[in-house]
Amino acid sequence: MRMFTIFERAFRVFHDNPSLSKLMVVCTVSGGGLLAFAETRPFSGSDSVPKKKVVVLGTGWAGTSFLKNLKSSTFEVQVVSPRNYFAFTPLLPSVTCGTVEARSIVEPIRNIVRKKGINIEFKEAECYKIDTDNNKVYCRSSQDTNLGGKEEFSVDYDYLVIAMGARSNTFNTPGVVENCHFLKVKKRNYFHSDPISNLKKIFSAQNNKTVIQEVEDAQKIRRTVIDCFERANLPNLSEEERKRILHFVVVGGGPTGVEFAAELHDFVLEDLAKLYPNVKDLAKITLLEAGDHILNMFDKRITAFAEEKFQRDGIHLKTGSMVIKVDDKHISTKERSTGEVSDIPYGMVVWSTGIGTRPVIMDFMKQIGQTNRRALATDEWLRVEGRNNIYALGDCATINQRKVMEDISVIFSKADKNNSGTLNLKDFQEVIDDICERYPQVGLYLKKRQMRNIADLLKSSQAEKQGTELDIALFTSALSEVDSQMKNLPATAQVAAQQGQYLANCFNHMEECGRNPEGPLRFRGTGRHRFRPFRYKHLGQFAPLGGEQAAAQLPGDWVSIGKSTQWLWYSVYASKQVSWRTRALVVSDWGRRFIFGRDSSRI
Amino acid sequence: MRMFTIFERAFRVFHDNPSLSKLMVVCTVSGGGLLAFAETRPFSGSDSVPKKKVVVLGTGWAGTSFLKNLKSSTFEVQVVSPRNYFAFTPLLPSVTCGTVEARSIVEPIRNIVRKKGINIEFKEAECYKIDTDNNKVYCRSSQDTNLGGKEEFSVDYDYLVIAMGARSNTFNTPGVVENCHFLKVKKRNYFHSDPISNLKKIFSAQNNKTVIQEVEDAQKIRRTVIDCFERANLPNLSEEERKRILHFVVVGGGPTGVEFAAELHDFVLEDLAKLYPNVKDLAKITLLEAGDHILNMFDKRITAFAEEKFQRDGIHLKTGSMVIKVDDKHISTKERSTGEVSDIPYGMVVWSTGIGTRPVIMDFMKQIGQTNRRALATDEWLRVEGRNNIYALGDCATINQRKVMEDISVIFSKADKNNSGTLNLKDFQEVIDDICERYPQVGLYLKKRQMRNIADLLKSSQAEKQGTELDIALFTSALSEVDSQMKNLPATAQVAAQQGQYLANCFNHMEECGRNPEGPLRFRGTGRHRFRPFRYKHLGQFAPLGGEQAAAQLPGDWVSIGKSTQWLWYSVYASKQVSWRTRALVVSDWGRRFIFGRDSSRI
Repeated sequence: MRMFTIFERAFRVFHDNPSLSKLMVVCTVSGGGLLAFAETRPFSGSDSVPKKKVVVLGTGWAGTSFLKNLKSSTFEVQVVSPRNYFAFTPLLPSVTCGTVEARSIVEPIRNIVRKKGINIEFKEAECYKIDTDNNKVYCRSSQDTNLGGKEEFSVDYDYLVIAMGARSNTFNTPGVVENCHFLKVKKRNYFHSDPISNLKKIFSAQNNKTVIQEVEDAQKIRRTVIDCFERANLPNLSEEERKRILHFVVVGGGPTGVEFAAELHDFVLEDLAKLYPNVKDLAKITLLEAGDHILNMFDKRITAFAEEKFQRDGIHLKTGSMVIKVDDKHISTKERSTGEVSDIPYGMVVWSTGIGTRPVIMDFMKQIGQTNRRALATDEWLRVEGRNNIYALGDCATINQRKVMEDISVIFSKADKNNSGTLNLKDFQEVIDDICERYPQVGLYLKKRQMRNIADLLKSSQAEKQGTELDIALFTSALSEVDSQMKNLPATAQVAAQQGQYLANCFNHMEECGRNPEGPLRFRGTGRHRFRPFRYKHLGQFAPLGGEQAAAQLPGDWVSIGKSTQWLWYSVYASKQVSWRTRALVVSDWGRRFIFGRDSSRI
Repeated sequence: MRMFTIFERAFRVFHDNPSLSKLMVVCTVSGGGLLAFAETRPFSGSDSVPKKKVVVLGTGWAGTSFLKNLKSSTFEVQVVSPRNYFAFTPLLPSVTCGTVEARSIVEPIRNIVRKKGINIEFKEAECYKIDTDNNKVYCRSSQDTNLGGKEEFSVDYDYLVIAMGARSNTFNTPGVVENCHFLKVKKRNYFHSDPISNLKKIFSAQNNKTVIQEVEDAQKIRRTVIDCFERANLPNLSEEERKRILHFVVVGGGPTGVEFAAELHDFVLEDLAKLYPNVKDLAKITLLEAGDHILNMFDKRITAFAEEKFQRDGIHLKTGSMVIKVDDKHISTKERSTGEVSDIPYGMVVWSTGIGTRPVIMDFMKQIGQTNRRALATDEWLRVEGRNNIYALGDCATINQRKVMEDISVIFSKADKNNSGTLNLKDFQEVIDDICERYPQVGLYLKKRQMRNIADLLKSSQAEKQGTELDIALFTSALSEVDSQMKNLPATAQVAAQQGQYLANCFNHMEECGRNPEGPLRFRGTGRHRFRPFRYKHLGQFAPLGGEQAAAQLPGDWVSIGKSTQWLWYSVYASKQVSWRTRALVVSDWGRRFIFGRDSSRI
C-alpha cells in the first residue's frame, strides 16, 4: 500500500473543492505550527563504521525526552516499552474526571521519533531481564490477545538507557491491590512515617503485582465514579448504602491526590449534580493524609490556602491518619497521635501515595550488587554505578551524589599543586570552578550562607586563624558542612525530562567530548570528566485546587495562588505538550469542558 | 453540594477576565446553538390524577428518539438500560479506526432527558424478565465491580416500551464468539442463503452469550488493529507469520462491513504505513460475502462502483463464500458454487453480518405465544400483538402488516353500506382513503402499476366486464396482488428513530385522540382507530467507501457517488447528531483527522 503525505491527503480533498483552498491558506499561515508536521525524509546513514547500538527501555518522560533530543545519527536506537505511546502524566488527574480526554494526552512514540531522520526502532514489549554479562536485554511482547501467546526475544546493546519508571507502592497494606484504584503520584511521598520499616516493606512488596498502567487506571477511575452515581440511583437501597457508595476516598495528600480530589469535587458540583439530582447531596469526598498537612512539599502559604479551600468546598480532610487495611466496603485508618482505629465505609478509594521499584529493576539491582536501595543508584552522569555503558534515569533511578568529605584529601592535593601541604587562595582559585561543578552541594551551601563564592567560605575560616594559608585540617573544617545540602531529586516528570535531555546531549557530543572533555577535573583520577555532570534546574511546581484556582511554587520560593495561577497552569501545560496534535486536543478539551461540561457516559 | 449552571460557571471565569467577555459575546451570537443549552426548570406536575407509568427499555435509537420526542407531562417515565448513554451507531465504523473518537458519538441519556422538563428517571440496569401478568419488569444492575454483587429490582408499568435492540448473530458458526470481533450491522443481512435453516439456527443460538456492546466493541477493534501492527513488528517472526498477523478479514458485505474495510484501508494507507514502514507492504484486507455482490441492498451502480474501487485499492473481495469455522489463526470458508473449503490465516476477524434476538426478548416471545419468529411481532401501531399496553420498536421488533386478503370480506361489507352485495364507485369513494391508510401495500401496488388511485384499479377490473358495479369476487380479484408489495422494514437506525418519534407523538396525543380518533376506519370492528398507523419514510442510505468517497441511494432511487457524496455524508451525519456537544466533537474529530491523521496509541 502506498503512503500518503499530508500534502497528498490535502490535495485529494482540495482538488475537487478549489474554494476551500483559500481557507486552507489562511489556516496554514495563522497556524505556523503546522509546519512542524512537514515530512522529513528518513536519513539513510551510509557510514562504513558499524553504528553503536543504543537500547532505551521505557517511553515515559525520561525515555521520550531522551529520544526527542537525540540528534546524532551515529547510533542505532531500539526502544522497548509496553506502551507504544508517550503519556503527558501531569494531566492524568484531569483524565479521571473527563476534563481532558485520555486520547488527548498521548502521542505514539513512533510519531515522535519518525520525524527525526535518525535510526530509531520501536518494539512494543516489556523487558523482563537485563543481562549485563552479555550486554543483552530479554523482552516479552505485552500482548495477551488470542493471537497465539506472548512472543519473547532479546536485544543486544552497546549502551543501555533504563527509563522504566516506577510502580505504585501499597506498602503491603492488606486489600489495597484488590480494592483500590491507582493514580500515578508525582513524588516519592512515603505514607508511613518510619523510613526503615518503609524500606523493608518496599522490598517485601517486590512480588506485588501492581503495575502502573497510568492512562488505563485514570480511565477506570472515571468509569467507577459514574458507576457509583448510577448505582446509588438504583431503587431498594438504604440511605446508608447510598451514602457509602457515594463516598470517595483519596489516599495521599500530595499534589496528585489533592488535584484529583479537587477535580472530582468540580465534576460532582458542576456536572453530576445536575444529572443525578436525587443523590447529589449524598456525595462526599475524603482526603486521607498520614502527615499533619497536605501538600507538605509546598510552601506553608499554599498548604494553608489549600486546606481552607477544601474546607469551604466541603472536601473532608483527615490528616495524621494511616491506612492499615482496605476491604470491599471499608477502609480502616489509624490515627497517628491516638492510635485510634476507625472503619470508613467507601464507594471508591483512589490510592495516590508511594511509588515502588519494578521487579525487573529489583532483579537488576541484585545482579549488580545494589541491594537495600529503593531505586537504581547512578553517578552524577546518570551512569549506573560500576557500569560504564548503562544509564538509568527518571523515576527508576536516583543520583548518588559524591560527598565532598569522602574526597577531601584528593581535592586538597589537586589544589595544592606544589605539594606544600598548605593552600593559598591563588592555588585554590584554579580548581574552584571544578569543585563547584563536581560537588553542587558546595554551591547550595554557599547560597544558603549567602556567600558569593567558595573563596568567601575559605576566608571566613582563615579569618578565625588570621592566616593566609590553609592546611588540610582547616580545609576540611571549612567544607565540613557542605554535604548536608545534598538532597535526592524528587521523582517528578520535570526531573525525568531534564535527565533525558541531558543524556541525549551527552550522546550527541559523545565523540567530540571524547576528544575534548568538557567536564570538571577528575579529583580521584587524572584528566577531566568527559561531560559536565547532570544538574537539575527546578522550574517550579503547580497544585491545581479546583474551581479554576491553582497554586504554584516557582523558583526563588515565589508563591502564586488563585485564578490567575490557573491560567498560568493552562498556558504552561499547553506549551509543554509533546506535539501540536496533543496541544490542539488538550486546549480544545478545555474549551469543550467549559462550554458543554464533562461527559458522564459510561464508556 | 450546590449546582452550577453554565452561566454561573462562565461567570466564575469571566469575572476576573473582563476582556474575555467580548469574545464570549461574539461566540455566543455566532453559535446560536448554545441557546439549546439554556436550562429549563424541571416541571413539577401538580396534577391530582395519578400519572400513568411508562417504562422504556433501552437507550438506542428507538428508545432515545421516543424520549426526545415525548412532550406530555401526564406520564411518569422510567428508563432502564445497561448503557447510560445514547450512541450514534452509524459512526461506529469510524470509531474502529480513530477517525472519530468514541466519546464524540455518545451523549448521556440523563443529559438528553434533563432539559425536557418532564418526569423521566433513568436506571442503569438490564431488564432480564418481563412479567405481563403483573405489569412488571425485573431488572439487574449492569455493574460487576467490587461494589458488592449485582443489585436486582422490579419496576411497575402501565405502558411498556420495548426498545432493546438486537444482538450479533453468529448463526452458531463454531469459533466465532471466541475469535471474532463484532461490529454492529445496519441491516438484517442473513449470511446463509436458506431462510428456514437460518431461522432454526437463530433459535438454536438463543443461549449464545454474544451481547452487543457496540462502542466497547469498536474501541476493541481499534486496539486490536494497533496490536496486530505492533506484533508484526517484533523480531524473530517469519515473513509468513507477519503476513498472517496483518491479514484483516471482514465478514459481511453490507454497508457496515464495507465501511469498516474502507476505513481500515485508509487508516493503514494514510497513517499506519508511515509509522510501520517495515511491515506496511504485508498488510492485507479481505472482505467475505456470502452473496454474489457486496452492498446488495443498494442500486447495482453503487455495487459496481464499490467493487471496482475496492479492487483498485487492493482490498481483496471474496464473494459467494460462507464462513463455516473460525479457529485462533484460521477462518474456514466454503465456496457456495463449488463447495470448496479453504482455510485463510488471519490476524483479526471482524464479524459484521447477521443480527439476532436477545434472550430476554426470546423469553418474552415464548411467554406471549410468539414462537418461531425472529423478532417481536407488533401491529401497525407498534403494539405487541395481543397486548394493548406493550409497545416494541427498533431492531427487536418487526411490524406484522395486516393483509388485505385476510380482511377482504369485511372491507367489502364496510364499503357496501346498503348491503346490496355489489359496490359502485360512489360507495367505494367513501372508504378509499381509509383502505389506503390501513393497508399501505395498496398504495405501493398502485405506485408500481402507475395508477393514480384505487378507483383506477377497480376500473381496470370493471373494464374487462364492461359493468359499473363490483361484486365480492371481482373486488377480491382486483386487490388480489396488492399484498405482494408488503415488505419488512430494514433494521436500521432510521426506522428505529422514526418509530420512536411516532410512538412519542401517540403518547403526546393519547388523551386527545382518545376523544377524537385520528386513525382510519376499523374494518374488523366499529369506529375508527385511535391513531394513524406507523408509516416509514425512507430518507436514503449512505455507503462510505473510503478515500473521501461515498455512495448514496436517495429516495426516488436517485444514486449519487463520489467525493461530493462524502461531503453530503459529512453534513447529514453532523446534522443528525443528538446534541450540540457531540456535533461539535464529531466535526472537530474530522478536522483533527484531516490535519493530524488518526492516533495509533494503544489505549
